[in-house]
Amino acid sequence: MTRSGAFSRVGVAGARSPGHPFISMTNSQVAPWRRARYTSRVFRTPETAPAMTIDAENRLSHDERLDRLAEIAVRVGLRLRQGQEVVVTAPVEALPLVRRITAHAYRAGASLVTTLFNDDETTLQRFRYGSEESFDHAAGWLYDGMASAFKAGAARLAVVGDDPALLSSQDPAKVARANRARSIAYKPALDHIVNFDVNWSIVSCATPAWAKAVFPNVPPSDALALLWEAIFQASRVDGFDPIAAWAQHDHELSMRTALLNKKRYAALRFRGPGTDLTVGLADDHQWEGGATMAKNGIVCNANIPTEEVFTTPHRLRVNGTVRATRPLSYQGTLIEDIAVRFEEGQIVESHARSGADVLAKVLSTDDGARRLGEVALVPQSSPISQSGILFYNTLFDENAASHIALGQAYAKCIRGGAQLTPDELTRRGANTSLIHIDWMIGSAEIDVDGLDAAGTSEPVMRKGEWV
Amino acid sequence: MTRSGAFSRVGVAGARSPGHPFISMTNSQVAPWRRARYTSRVFRTPETAPAMTIDAENRLSHDERLDRLAEIAVRVGLRLRQGQEVVVTAPVEALPLVRRITAHAYRAGASLVTTLFNDDETTLQRFRYGSEESFDHAAGWLYDGMASAFKAGAARLAVVGDDPALLSSQDPAKVARANRARSIAYKPALDHIVNFDVNWSIVSCATPAWAKAVFPNVPPSDALALLWEAIFQASRVDGFDPIAAWAQHDHELSMRTALLNKKRYAALRFRGPGTDLTVGLADDHQWEGGATMAKNGIVCNANIPTEEVFTTPHRLRVNGTVRATRPLSYQGTLIEDIAVRFEEGQIVESHARSGADVLAKVLSTDDGARRLGEVALVPQSSPISQSGILFYNTLFDENAASHIALGQAYAKCIRGGAQLTPDELTRRGANTSLIHIDWMIGSAEIDVDGLDAAGTSEPVMRKGEWV
Repeated sequence: MTRSGAFSRVGVAGARSPGHPFISMTNSQVAPWRRARYTSRVFRTPETAPAMTIDAENRLSHDERLDRLAEIAVRVGLRLRQGQEVVVTAPVEALPLVRRITAHAYRAGASLVTTLFNDDETTLQRFRYGSEESFDHAAGWLYDGMASAFKAGAARLAVVGDDPALLSSQDPAKVARANRARSIAYKPALDHIVNFDVNWSIVSCATPAWAKAVFPNVPPSDALALLWEAIFQASRVDGFDPIAAWAQHDHELSMRTALLNKKRYAALRFRGPGTDLTVGLADDHQWEGGATMAKNGIVCNANIPTEEVFTTPHRLRVNGTVRATRPLSYQGTLIEDIAVRFEEGQIVESHARSGADVLAKVLSTDDGARRLGEVALVPQSSPISQSGILFYNTLFDENAASHIALGQAYAKCIRGGAQLTPDELTRRGANTSLIHIDWMIGSAEIDVDGLDAAGTSEPVMRKGEWV
Repeated sequence: MTRSGAFSRVGVAGARSPGHPFISMTNSQVAPWRRARYTSRVFRTPETAPAMTIDAENRLSHDERLDRLAEIAVRVGLRLRQGQEVVVTAPVEALPLVRRITAHAYRAGASLVTTLFNDDETTLQRFRYGSEESFDHAAGWLYDGMASAFKAGAARLAVVGDDPALLSSQDPAKVARANRARSIAYKPALDHIVNFDVNWSIVSCATPAWAKAVFPNVPPSDALALLWEAIFQASRVDGFDPIAAWAQHDHELSMRTALLNKKRYAALRFRGPGTDLTVGLADDHQWEGGATMAKNGIVCNANIPTEEVFTTPHRLRVNGTVRATRPLSYQGTLIEDIAVRFEEGQIVESHARSGADVLAKVLSTDDGARRLGEVALVPQSSPISQSGILFYNTLFDENAASHIALGQAYAKCIRGGAQLTPDELTRRGANTSLIHIDWMIGSAEIDVDGLDAAGTSEPVMRKGEWV
């Protein structure tokens, strides 16, 4: 799951943390009928003209699909309750989607829908013209307002379409200061989200800058259309009844987490080219995936799309070597061909063909940055994986392959974790860090085994698919 | 002065009070050189193709003029202080202007610029799809956030471009409920503005819907261009040095208010076709106009444009008949050919060729709705008056002609008024009401005399111009 879209750039000016998801997870079994269906639609050559197969059922107009995405955001993502207020954050480019979301929210009985728009250009103005001191400021009054809204029961919808490279040419020190100020100011509001006090969701919206990053070699309008196509497919907007399709998808994910929770594996072992990694799981670990019940009793889908199932590794029990299967996009830098070695939970050796200095900096953030906070399984047949696209956006990329995440663990992935103190969580093996960076290690060449306490193994995935 | 743009629709959904300025005032002497200059530029037939004279000095591109308007907003409107935070509210259509405002604000040393965008379409969604109960809700968390920002010293800039007819076909009961809920929720923030705790300003931005209302008989793109032309001219963006031109304009307005304050007239008498009205002035009345010093010590121009000088009438001392010289646009209804008779401060007889029922409803709002809260003088040579355009926007229309306002008086227009209790203000003659509606009574046929306590008169304006 990602909450990387969680207001990372709203409040507009400068307060932004691109590609810095703090908590991140998910995956699922794709039913055979769905697998076949999605496989038939895939574009395999995303950087050139894609070869797309359009089903007969798929002949909805762009506006109809946009409307369906809006309906999914309200009825599947938030599962909005009658009379509930909604706080939306969105890039200004998302206006047509926001208007449809607003309409669906009112139809679903929203008491009020308020959208806070952010604009990349005004974010950049600050870096161009702002004084040194300005980078320590954040719109605390606005974040506090959001916290009040959530405390009073408002649902929260983030529409994301970030330009992955927006701040890549800006002074990293200023970016870090602005992010720090924002993080501190935003914490009271974010805590309500992280703790699932209210139902919340993230959906995405294609924007020209994001589309250009994903499809750099096609004309801008084609790139935008391709990104929309990918978003619509991954968000399951097509077909006879998208709401029912999401119910089915959630059901499949819950069957998968139920099975894994019953297994009580002590560890997972990943094997493939360059990879032989044993990831010990935390004591009392809990697999999560798909819909989540928030503390207000509403079962929401916090990420649209979502394909992963995920849990908490044990911070001291990870051993072996692992090679990344996709590049990692981190704050505008592409880190390629990562390979690392773990000993007793900690990365003791790391390599990367490009971006190695950034990787080293990330690993030295704090004590927990060299340890794992999440392990997630995603089959290769998932529609996002099949698209072959690198989205530079955690909401999508983490749903393309099995992955691990450096840094902070997620309390929800420990049984009764919401009621435990930080110390109790640490004793069970949950890692603590300021970072949480997802990192793809799955592919069609990777096998995954489940190990019990005695070391006996059984197959979980073969060649990237559930057994 | 108007604060009608003061967040009347921000927070987006439904919370809106079109054309419902609560406090409103102003006018000035236009220097002969300026008078000539503006006269030469006027378009006299706004509803058809306008005959515009463009000076050589006026050959700036649209983008250059937009940039100058942004600079005027920051350096003349707000007179932003180094290190000050700025809260901007704006329609989404104003994005290009907002980006330039943001750049100028950072250049001027803003610590942070946050824009809250509003969108008419999402406002309408609520009326189309919202439940009955929804109309009693307002985004209190957002308004409280704004109040916190102002309390902490943030400046406030409203960019307005309201569609005057947005809610005209919606259920008036719902509009009233939404406005009421918003008014209550917004009061803490608005109090900081009304009391001038911080520097604030309103500037305008042409939007397609507003342009269509002003120029219904020309093609949409021409209408938008015409409205921009009118806004740019009225906001004094052209010429060699707009900032210096505004300083000169403020100086002229302050000379005029100083002269009127020295005169200490007991009353003003308006005479012309259908009009013979004596407006007694409040005891200790104070003339205001142009720049204002906020309590944080910053001298701001709260309205861009502004041409009026204004003060507080005595609520019990208005007598005679008066005929409106322009139609009054009130919440989507056009009230034409208003004529009323006052006795001892109160309207005892009222007529209108159209919209008479709405006028009657307005007058019965409360006890103070039949009495005056403001009298303002504007010469016919003012650029807005010369444009001949009815803008359906108080920011412009109140600067087109001398006017009176029904309803609430402005404490600032009583000497030491900010320190007086409501009772003390009432004793001096200041009126109290939930409404404040400006209403044009000046024209080139109107003479204005100043009367002293003994009834001796001297000319103040002749044929709509200062003597």
